[in-house]
Amino acid sequence: MKAVVLLSGGLDSATTLALAKEQGDTCYALSFNYGQRHSAELNAAKNVAQSMNVTEHKIINLDLTQIGGSALTDKNIAVPQAPSEGIPITYVPARNTIFLSYALAWSEVLGINDIFIGVNAVDYSGYPDCRPEYIAAFENMARLATKSGVEGHPFRIRTPLIHLSKAEIIRKGTELGVDYSLTVSCYQADEHGHACGMCDSCRFRKEGFSAAGIPDPTIYI
Amino acid sequence: MKAVVLLSGGLDSATTLALAKEQGDTCYALSFNYGQRHSAELNAAKNVAQSMNVTEHKIINLDLTQIGGSALTDKNIAVPQAPSEGIPITYVPARNTIFLSYALAWSEVLGINDIFIGVNAVDYSGYPDCRPEYIAAFENMARLATKSGVEGHPFRIRTPLIHLSKAEIIRKGTELGVDYSLTVSCYQADEHGHACGMCDSCRFRKEGFSAAGIPDPTIYI
Repeated sequence: MKAVVLLSGGLDSATTLALAKEQGDTCYALSFNYGQRHSAELNAAKNVAQSMNVTEHKIINLDLTQIGGSALTDKNIAVPQAPSEGIPITYVPARNTIFLSYALAWSEVLGINDIFIGVNAVDYSGYPDCRPEYIAAFENMARLATKSGVEGHPFRIRTPLIHLSKAEIIRKGTELGVDYSLTVSCYQADEHGHACGMCDSCRFRKEGFSAAGIPDPTIYI
Repeated sequence: MKAVVLLSGGLDSATTLALAKEQGDTCYALSFNYGQRHSAELNAAKNVAQSMNVTEHKIINLDLTQIGGSALTDKNIAVPQAPSEGIPITYVPARNTIFLSYALAWSEVLGINDIFIGVNAVDYSGYPDCRPEYIAAFENMARLATKSGVEGHPFRIRTPLIHLSKAEIIRKGTELGVDYSLTVSCYQADEHGHACGMCDSCRFRKEGFSAAGIPDPTIYI
């Protein structure tokens, strides 16, 4: 079976790719150069894609800084160094919807019906577009949006990590041979992919390795 | 009230913008430079936006030729000169989903909850992402995807043309003073915006003016 896998270069999407491959899927990886704060993430995506022998790795250019509204797409907004109440300022408006829409378009052109995304609703920042109910609604919309859906070949949005803790994700990925030293999770990594250790994303990652009892290969600034 | 209006430069979106303005909405127009076959469409969008005094007109660059799969985004696929069975090859995979996703992102940043799109399910090419059930599913997904939705301010996708015939759309727009000579509907217009007169989009437009009994200002090649 074939699948399109969204690949950010972070820990979760690398594990998702490993899980898709474990199920025997021929994988097409999709990443976005969307104006994120650093390029280390995209370099990580390229390295992960290569290490897992994907069939094709497409990087789409799209400039979300034209829209802004988030610490990740507007350099005038600082990345918080401590947890906050509610949905944090690192939330990027409609980001997963935009990413999944491109994945949907590419899948339809490739004749593929399975789209993997590494969203997680356990150890996460409370982003609305990581929740199961959102994914179900996207899947329903995708069925109605597309020629494939209308012709009886609906898309499945597959979220193998959605109910796992970060420690469970790391244990599973380690079993499957994911090289987490290639991945970058930090919202403000430097050009070498070294991590700040303080942002939400670093915190979830660090606590995950600790709880999994697996050495953390991350290099901190 | 404020609204984001998707503006392609064609007849339908120009009429949609006029209807949004008639309702007293302060309008933010959104267009896409997506690798369409010709630039006349975007020039038309700029002229329409200016003629209707929108508050801001944003043009987002996104390259759907990286994805292809349609006569409109792959120059190796010819635009059909006659009607075909089923969903035609001018269908662009997930295009309205991608466009609405960007509109959703921008609306959320602007604090706007109304998004207008000129889809029509009467005199149309059978594209799945123009149907009311698709729009309803997108709206539901958007509510779950966003911070605004979660916080009790869901988005409305407003489709004032969806049940109108092309003639009704043209009559309504003419009443509201839309200058249709500024608009370009043709899938393969030349650089002056002159139309082929043969593609699906030209045919619907031509028959619409004829049925409305209104002189057609289109210049044909």
